[in-house]
Amino acid sequence: MLRSQFEEDLLNLHNQFYEMGMMVSSAIHKSVKAYVKHDKQLAKEVIAYDDHINELEISLEKRSFEMIALQQPVTTDLRNIITVMKASSDLERMGDHAVSIAKSTIRVKGQQRIAEVEKEISDMSDYVKKMVDNVLVAYVKTDQKDARMIAQMDEKVNKYYNDIYYMTIDSMKENPETVISGTEYLYVAQYLERIGDYVTNICEWIVYLATGKITELGSSQEPKRE
Amino acid sequence: MLRSQFEEDLLNLHNQFYEMGMMVSSAIHKSVKAYVKHDKQLAKEVIAYDDHINELEISLEKRSFEMIALQQPVTTDLRNIITVMKASSDLERMGDHAVSIAKSTIRVKGQQRIAEVEKEISDMSDYVKKMVDNVLVAYVKTDQKDARMIAQMDEKVNKYYNDIYYMTIDSMKENPETVISGTEYLYVAQYLERIGDYVTNICEWIVYLATGKITELGSSQEPKRE
Repeated sequence: MLRSQFEEDLLNLHNQFYEMGMMVSSAIHKSVKAYVKHDKQLAKEVIAYDDHINELEISLEKRSFEMIALQQPVTTDLRNIITVMKASSDLERMGDHAVSIAKSTIRVKGQQRIAEVEKEISDMSDYVKKMVDNVLVAYVKTDQKDARMIAQMDEKVNKYYNDIYYMTIDSMKENPETVISGTEYLYVAQYLERIGDYVTNICEWIVYLATGKITELGSSQEPKRE
Repeated sequence: MLRSQFEEDLLNLHNQFYEMGMMVSSAIHKSVKAYVKHDKQLAKEVIAYDDHINELEISLEKRSFEMIALQQPVTTDLRNIITVMKASSDLERMGDHAVSIAKSTIRVKGQQRIAEVEKEISDMSDYVKKMVDNVLVAYVKTDQKDARMIAQMDEKVNKYYNDIYYMTIDSMKENPETVISGTEYLYVAQYLERIGDYVTNICEWIVYLATGKITELGSSQEPKRE
């Protein structure tokens, strides 16, 4: 009976993790939408919403702790819980980056902008959001094959980053009026790139869940623009 | 007997955590030294060294997992182990940021630089390194009073960041030749600022260890430059 209680608790834990992930995905989507549409109000919503994400993380942590203390799981069961605890930190940080993007929206308002770069950032964020949504499904299914595929998507994120970097640097050099917005573009692109790294981390957790081995996926934590 | 075995294992775990922390502190220090001295060779050392930090984290994780599985600790003992697991992720990310600073050193080499900003970055990094060293001692002593004081130091880190931001933006606007190095300055300042955030996270873990309560320290995860 204890065993089935544990299974039910674990299912609840995974559902809560998925829910937290969907909240983060939505925050990322909204923060970039606000960015591209110059929508300060929507940006403020994203910032206010982050408290809910943080609360959910704390609640996940408490539950995990209680499950370990009360049910004293070993091997795979313990690994399942520890992994939720670790991966939920990654989700929380992705949420923090959505907040950073939203703050950038508020700062850049009124500055001279570069439409071409904003289009690229918008495409990049659609792509990153797809990675986030996919990794959540892969997590719930403990699908390590998918996880490995999703980690590979990070290459293209780095390519997006590089393109945005060069476009922005050129524009800042040519037109000093774009220095402030350009700096913000680089930050936003970097936040998105980091979100891609966190997705790769979660992919590694999925592989760990499936195999018990800690495996490094993805080539590096940073795009190479040198 | 089991109890004293646990205590010994926990002491070892804390020592290993401290060791990892000192490695990270040294990586941060060296990466900024390389940055300011334009020392590409030292930067490469920092990058190569990061593998050791990551290995130590994996080893910490394995040990923690085994301690939970084999000794089935509850309440404070369990909390001690979980916290090392969580806080070691923070350390590992601080190490990643040192690597990012080192990579920036390699990229910026040969670009026109701004001595005034580099001086400020150097001061900022000395300050951040002090925070890192202090938080490691506070962790080992589970000193929540110190932890709260260290978290307050983050305010000044944000001030450093803001100063560097404005200096750099002004310079980029006035002289397009500084756009590339200016962008790197902003990144490096941001990495240091994030390291300060991770220190604050670890401070929160110390308070959690001491009180069992998850407490938010520090005002926000980002400097206010708007």
